[in-house]
Amino acid sequence: MKAYKDMSRDELLSLKASLLEQYKTEEAKGLSLNMARGKPGATQLAISMPLLDEINSKSDMTTLLGNDTRNYGDWDGIGECRQLMADMMEVKKANVVVCGNSSLNIMYDTVVRSMVMGVNGLTPWCKLDKVKFLCPVPGYDRHFKITETFGIEMIPVPLGEDGPDMDMVEEYVSGDDAVKGIWCVPKYSNPTGITYSDEVVRRFANLKPAAADFRIFWDNAYCIHHLYDDMKDKIPNILEECEKAGNPDMVYVFASTSKISFPGSGVSAVATSLANMEYIKKFMTTQIIGHDKINQLRHARFFKNIDGLNAHMKKHADLMRPKFEAVLTVLDRELAGLEIGTWTRPRGGYFISFDSMPGCAKAIVAKCRDLGLVLTGAGATYPYGRDPKDSNIRIAPSFPTPEEMFEAAGMFALCVKIVSVEKLLGQ
Amino acid sequence: MKAYKDMSRDELLSLKASLLEQYKTEEAKGLSLNMARGKPGATQLAISMPLLDEINSKSDMTTLLGNDTRNYGDWDGIGECRQLMADMMEVKKANVVVCGNSSLNIMYDTVVRSMVMGVNGLTPWCKLDKVKFLCPVPGYDRHFKITETFGIEMIPVPLGEDGPDMDMVEEYVSGDDAVKGIWCVPKYSNPTGITYSDEVVRRFANLKPAAADFRIFWDNAYCIHHLYDDMKDKIPNILEECEKAGNPDMVYVFASTSKISFPGSGVSAVATSLANMEYIKKFMTTQIIGHDKINQLRHARFFKNIDGLNAHMKKHADLMRPKFEAVLTVLDRELAGLEIGTWTRPRGGYFISFDSMPGCAKAIVAKCRDLGLVLTGAGATYPYGRDPKDSNIRIAPSFPTPEEMFEAAGMFALCVKIVSVEKLLGQ
Repeated sequence: MKAYKDMSRDELLSLKASLLEQYKTEEAKGLSLNMARGKPGATQLAISMPLLDEINSKSDMTTLLGNDTRNYGDWDGIGECRQLMADMMEVKKANVVVCGNSSLNIMYDTVVRSMVMGVNGLTPWCKLDKVKFLCPVPGYDRHFKITETFGIEMIPVPLGEDGPDMDMVEEYVSGDDAVKGIWCVPKYSNPTGITYSDEVVRRFANLKPAAADFRIFWDNAYCIHHLYDDMKDKIPNILEECEKAGNPDMVYVFASTSKISFPGSGVSAVATSLANMEYIKKFMTTQIIGHDKINQLRHARFFKNIDGLNAHMKKHADLMRPKFEAVLTVLDRELAGLEIGTWTRPRGGYFISFDSMPGCAKAIVAKCRDLGLVLTGAGATYPYGRDPKDSNIRIAPSFPTPEEMFEAAGMFALCVKIVSVEKLLGQ
Repeated sequence: MKAYKDMSRDELLSLKASLLEQYKTEEAKGLSLNMARGKPGATQLAISMPLLDEINSKSDMTTLLGNDTRNYGDWDGIGECRQLMADMMEVKKANVVVCGNSSLNIMYDTVVRSMVMGVNGLTPWCKLDKVKFLCPVPGYDRHFKITETFGIEMIPVPLGEDGPDMDMVEEYVSGDDAVKGIWCVPKYSNPTGITYSDEVVRRFANLKPAAADFRIFWDNAYCIHHLYDDMKDKIPNILEECEKAGNPDMVYVFASTSKISFPGSGVSAVATSLANMEYIKKFMTTQIIGHDKINQLRHARFFKNIDGLNAHMKKHADLMRPKFEAVLTVLDRELAGLEIGTWTRPRGGYFISFDSMPGCAKAIVAKCRDLGLVLTGAGATYPYGRDPKDSNIRIAPSFPTPEEMFEAAGMFALCVKIVSVEKLLGQ
């Protein structure tokens, strides 16, 4: 394979002509495929259907402690579901509040509460001239959207193979008391799929924030979302590490079953120190009498325990792996050696991250869209939707079938080639 | 019956002695009954159990429009559930967003959003020196708790037989631009059970607020919660009335099925103008990808339409009526003519409101507690928990059985008598 950058102008022109021929063929197929979001595929939804049989009109509706899940009570979740989520999040049950169907909602509420009422009684962020969040990039657009919505200044921090650039994180966090938070997806990161190294996690726990109300927003969305049974990433327990480091209140951990049971009909949870929980409780018990405990019971009874969760995740992995591998197979076959892009090889999570030549991502996404292939908007993985290099594209392989994914990856690779050739030709 | 106030000191002393004898008898029964909250009773929960059979692993999980309820999408709720809630709230489907399990949560979010980001782009309330809410009293403690939590000054407005004192409401709303909202339960009010008259509703719609961001928080929690099939209260449609009056954006209407299906596992909704909805959408779609659509589907299929809802509410009424009537029968029998208290005779809703002689409510609630009968704390129906007359007590008849309710009402009446006698004796 000859790298595109080493090709002569004539070679590029002739390559372009042949690529455009291929494009016409693909165009004729009239594909329509949406890969914009990390939506579970139909086969994944199917494996969770028995969850819906767990509770019916004949069921005993009481918790292990004898509380009626059909009535008010248990603002922090029913015991057995708190235990289940605690085991999944690798924290103690006492540190867990089980909430509604969305961990994003808990994160949003946490930011809003800090804006209006402050963190544990400190000055509300809305009273400050400037509030900043660190945003490892590429990252999750919905995180960035929350901070953007509230006018919080977002500072991009490069995300490497083993986590965010910790030198930069430490400098910002200890040097600027306007820095109040950082968005993290520590395991199988969205979108690169990398997992933070033990050292990175420990450096997080040992931060010396200038702001007493600095908090790590640790979105452990993919904590048990492994693709390979024999290659399960592990990270140190951030709650314990923070406690050891004398920073017990510095982190909120979030997770949900959105990509375990059903997106939108799962359960979510937050884990944090008892001091943080005491403060959160004041607001959460004002906000709501209690979350959907029948759904919590449904989940607790269906999964039973962490072994049940892991067994279920193995089924997801069996369905997801061929899709990830389809993408990687095609990208390897089509793009290796061309030096027009790099891509990640995640061992878990929901995404593959692709970096094109600088200045090509928007054009690639647009060209794919013309072929009927909808990708996450280029730039979405950066704060304010601005990727300074215009090179990162998030590939979400979960929703299509493996066959569709093969085809889509081929089209994607074709679009990458065309846009890259045009770029090199200065077109 | 001789009124207590007309009794001589000797008569009162001898009455007290005989009441204390009765008290001892009651004490010996060792009752333990919690009537603190408006919790549906066991028989009520039972009639909603078939709802849980509506969705199982064999169900078609798609909406009428063909959307998969198991996956992301439909941030504003599935069509059939929006229609159901619209019919229940007597508004148009286009004006309805169906949310999670709690209308209280929507109200909280609405207040918080206004605090941090303002109402439809106006100055955020947190940037203002003073924000005030009008609070018809007696009212719902959880409403007051939300405004209290955010440091919003609460101004009590007397609630009469046909609604709040509208002269006072109009004066505050048009005279003070710090007045940003009012909490209303327009039908079968919590706790007095009264329903706003048509004139009151129209005066609400025709308010001329000094503040452009003044909003009516119209918690129509008991919109179809009638006790008597032949005496169903009706109120004018506040959304339409506001529109007619040139105030289309002035009201948010809230409701839920918490007391129709299951508290904590129902669906909630907000109805408001399209302009308000457009603004809310920006934040709601940042906060959450979507609410629990499987539960929405479960509700839409179980109730089918407004006729299904009304038929279900008739079952609730059949269970609730005997409990309300038990209280009223006992209060009439025990207290009529004694001039030591007045009480309401609601045609719907969840509560009976009792007003003791001034300065007696706290003591009555404490005495009931000593007998094992837990009532809502005295004062809870007033902002900051401060009932200036110390006379209002909320009676929640839903949770006990009718038999328990008879007994509890008897104990309650006894405690009212004892405390009143002691008050008159200056003890």
